[in-house]
Amino acid sequence: MSAPIAKDRLYLFDTTLRDGQQTQGVQFSTPEKHMIAEALDDLGVDYIEGGWPGANPTDSAFFAEPPQTRATFLAFGMTKRAGRSAENDEVLAGVLNANTKAVCIVGKTHDFHVTTALGISLEENTDNIRASIAHIVAQGREALFDAEHFFDGYKANADYALACLHAAFGAGARWIVLCDTNGGTLPDEVHEITKAVIDSGIPGARLGIHTHDDTGNAVANSLAAVNAGARQIQGTLNGLGERCGNANLITLIPTLKLKEPYASTLETGVSDDALAGLIKVSRMLDDILNRVPTRAAPYVGASAFAHKAGLHASAILKDPTTYEHIDPAQVGNERIVPMSNQAGQSNLRKRLADMGISVDPKDARLGALLERVKERETEGYSYDTAQASFELLARDELGLSPEFFAVDRYRVTVERKRAPSGKMMHLSEAVVVVNIGGERHLSVSESHMPDGSDAGPVNALSKALAKDLGPYQAVIEDMDLVDFKVRITGGGVEAKTRVTIDHEDATGRRWSTVGVSPNIIDASFEALLDAIRWKLVRDGAKALGAE
Amino acid sequence: MSAPIAKDRLYLFDTTLRDGQQTQGVQFSTPEKHMIAEALDDLGVDYIEGGWPGANPTDSAFFAEPPQTRATFLAFGMTKRAGRSAENDEVLAGVLNANTKAVCIVGKTHDFHVTTALGISLEENTDNIRASIAHIVAQGREALFDAEHFFDGYKANADYALACLHAAFGAGARWIVLCDTNGGTLPDEVHEITKAVIDSGIPGARLGIHTHDDTGNAVANSLAAVNAGARQIQGTLNGLGERCGNANLITLIPTLKLKEPYASTLETGVSDDALAGLIKVSRMLDDILNRVPTRAAPYVGASAFAHKAGLHASAILKDPTTYEHIDPAQVGNERIVPMSNQAGQSNLRKRLADMGISVDPKDARLGALLERVKERETEGYSYDTAQASFELLARDELGLSPEFFAVDRYRVTVERKRAPSGKMMHLSEAVVVVNIGGERHLSVSESHMPDGSDAGPVNALSKALAKDLGPYQAVIEDMDLVDFKVRITGGGVEAKTRVTIDHEDATGRRWSTVGVSPNIIDASFEALLDAIRWKLVRDGAKALGAE
Repeated sequence: MSAPIAKDRLYLFDTTLRDGQQTQGVQFSTPEKHMIAEALDDLGVDYIEGGWPGANPTDSAFFAEPPQTRATFLAFGMTKRAGRSAENDEVLAGVLNANTKAVCIVGKTHDFHVTTALGISLEENTDNIRASIAHIVAQGREALFDAEHFFDGYKANADYALACLHAAFGAGARWIVLCDTNGGTLPDEVHEITKAVIDSGIPGARLGIHTHDDTGNAVANSLAAVNAGARQIQGTLNGLGERCGNANLITLIPTLKLKEPYASTLETGVSDDALAGLIKVSRMLDDILNRVPTRAAPYVGASAFAHKAGLHASAILKDPTTYEHIDPAQVGNERIVPMSNQAGQSNLRKRLADMGISVDPKDARLGALLERVKERETEGYSYDTAQASFELLARDELGLSPEFFAVDRYRVTVERKRAPSGKMMHLSEAVVVVNIGGERHLSVSESHMPDGSDAGPVNALSKALAKDLGPYQAVIEDMDLVDFKVRITGGGVEAKTRVTIDHEDATGRRWSTVGVSPNIIDASFEALLDAIRWKLVRDGAKALGAE
Repeated sequence: MSAPIAKDRLYLFDTTLRDGQQTQGVQFSTPEKHMIAEALDDLGVDYIEGGWPGANPTDSAFFAEPPQTRATFLAFGMTKRAGRSAENDEVLAGVLNANTKAVCIVGKTHDFHVTTALGISLEENTDNIRASIAHIVAQGREALFDAEHFFDGYKANADYALACLHAAFGAGARWIVLCDTNGGTLPDEVHEITKAVIDSGIPGARLGIHTHDDTGNAVANSLAAVNAGARQIQGTLNGLGERCGNANLITLIPTLKLKEPYASTLETGVSDDALAGLIKVSRMLDDILNRVPTRAAPYVGASAFAHKAGLHASAILKDPTTYEHIDPAQVGNERIVPMSNQAGQSNLRKRLADMGISVDPKDARLGALLERVKERETEGYSYDTAQASFELLARDELGLSPEFFAVDRYRVTVERKRAPSGKMMHLSEAVVVVNIGGERHLSVSESHMPDGSDAGPVNALSKALAKDLGPYQAVIEDMDLVDFKVRITGGGVEAKTRVTIDHEDATGRRWSTVGVSPNIIDASFEALLDAIRWKLVRDGAKALGAE
């Protein structure tokens, strides 16, 4: 029996919070940065780049209270400027003052950029690189050097580009990261040039790769560098990043864990369990960005294991490996066979059982409910993220839905006018009339933020609805609205609005409901009503009906 | 002087209408298929696969009146079944009866599939391939063989997989297309196996490649096969297709035309002029599918040449090649230097210059404006995607902002109540009071969808605001609200709402404005006001002020 071959360690470096934030329209808040860092740490990446301390208020606030992660948390900055020492460069000092265990600095390696963008001599630039890395190392930090425009630089002046890398390497950088900054390099070039760097004397175990997707090859370029010997990959969640985005770690991680030659020769910090939660990490980021998840995304997309072609679907029923390159469960995903009503119904029964509703497989109402769900989804409803509304829909269809009350009418008013002080102020008010067991309950509420200012019509509506539900009041008293998401489906002001609302109660339960309407107020109202109905059902409230 | 080196011809094969239609949720109508075929022909692809005649009514209708293209128009089908002759297979007959110049048939090459999915012997399968191709060739058609699961098949049983290819090749197939049907093969394997096929005696000039994006490598896999010698690429517009989609021709075409080693060694049917229209072809497909174009798409995405990082933006101003891998105009795209938290003063001056506002680099107001932008972005504003609001903010800060009017007050009401018919109905109404040159203009409007039903409070507000702006009315009359996006920043009902609104006018100009408030109505109102103010500024309306 031969000893198992030792696997090479491959390091994953996430830059969602730094390069990912270069995405047009993306600006994380400090709490969002904390949420993402925590998810990355749970996933098992090795490095988390938090941003550029001093570059903007959000990044500075984040580094003032850094996340506590197992992964190495880094600050990003740039090499010192010419004409001053590393010790006296206040931009570099701002980065070091964040006191992170590791620091990544970007520096030029393309001669044209040194002379055109920086306007300094080639020697001054290598000196800046050397002095900056040495300064970081002298402070006892782990130093990483991002070699900007390295591949273009190598093609223009290989000797100079390599000299820049060796300046950083010689000064003690733990990692030399080869950056395809403009994203125009193709996989074969990445492979060849990475090999040349290793041949020049920097071991692959000290080399990282940082790619962009400008030719649709960010993932392939990362793999090409690893094939050549590089042992760190930089990327982002969902491929966020400047222009077309960075290498997508959500795509790379399953390939590295599940596919050869990587699976049997390389080891990462991502466990099989963490891999099975990959889809959740991807969705969390979309949630924060209020983006519709990409259906066709490799591994984690809703369509990634959807078999539409008739030939494929029938073979899949015989053996899933006929048309699937991996088992979808390995990344937390699910197979979808739209052609097969069979698969749909067994799925549905599983969901109903999860809610404590048992239905016979032969029950004709299953087919009717499936049709109803499809119909509603065509109208814009999404039940994936609104289990409580799905449960109510199922109960309605199965005749298991008690009538607690009816809404006779509501009216919401939003006003902006000049206050007696002369300042403009706004005010939202909602009136709701509910019928419970034949008795009318009329409630009115203004909206307000914790500081007393106006919080808008949905807040007013939520408060009015929960103000007087008569005999049900005790049951709903501990409900707390904790999240509110809006998505416009289609374009123009006439588009439909989908509102998803999350509630929590004193038991710590959290549930989501959905409403759809061309009118955002009405969509919100529908979701609010569902939230109350679900709570009443779950807490076993006695239904009094309406007249 | 040496003679120019003859370039190899590389053939582009589009399957948007066949494999692209396997995308979840995609079903082209017959007129849409005609539109797409025409656009593909204008683009300069060599083959257009129209669908599977006989498989469904739309495909049959399309083949009954096929498009008249310069490109070779093909029908797709499968090899004859076992136990009958090619002449007597009615499925194959249905495909041949479409009378296309070329026919592409798919057949198995992976032994496991032959025995598991088809349940026939390996010999029967090779016989079916041979007989089907021979039958097509005997009818004077160009025959293409799609070798299904070829890469997986080769890894499982190389001899058998190659025997299947040679059966088709020997029977006269013009093209043998190597298909990575399940999408799980990586670029190095594609390269190696394609080389092995060429070594087995099928020339690269007779080989095609058909890949899927299940590992995010569809583009790289196509290039890997071309690098090994294959001379036909199959793909789709925007990477449409089963599961994660096919190789994206919109991404591949610019790489093949503009990048080495392809640009100087290969020739395609796509002219430079057609390449400059690439973005229009991509958008046309999104239009047909009613999809929001992918901002981060390589080459054609709205963000593909957007430079958000401050360091990048300042270098771009000196020389665009510093951070661009190609000139965006080559694919019909444009450079964007958006305003954002990350951007520096040089970025700012460039934006101002684009608006026709020239500011001295030493002007202290630049710093003040930058601070103001950062402050607003901390509040939740995003100017990346709202250039018009940015312009107004800059004008305010620079004292270049005329006061056209003031809003004294507004009131928006949304009601749901029982209509006289007994049905629940909802209604939105807005009242706006505007002061123009001391004169009050009071307008009221209800919202309505094109069908007369309620469209919500923002629609009502937009209508009321644009109803009577007195002397400005003629200027704003051609404004059309074309998109409306909502994003909640932070969580809970007390979170802030960011509304981004797009308008167009009769000149075809499109501009975006943003509003932020805890109150969605107020955020929308702010964005609507900005839209009107921007239009008045740009059209040089004479400001009358307010009293």
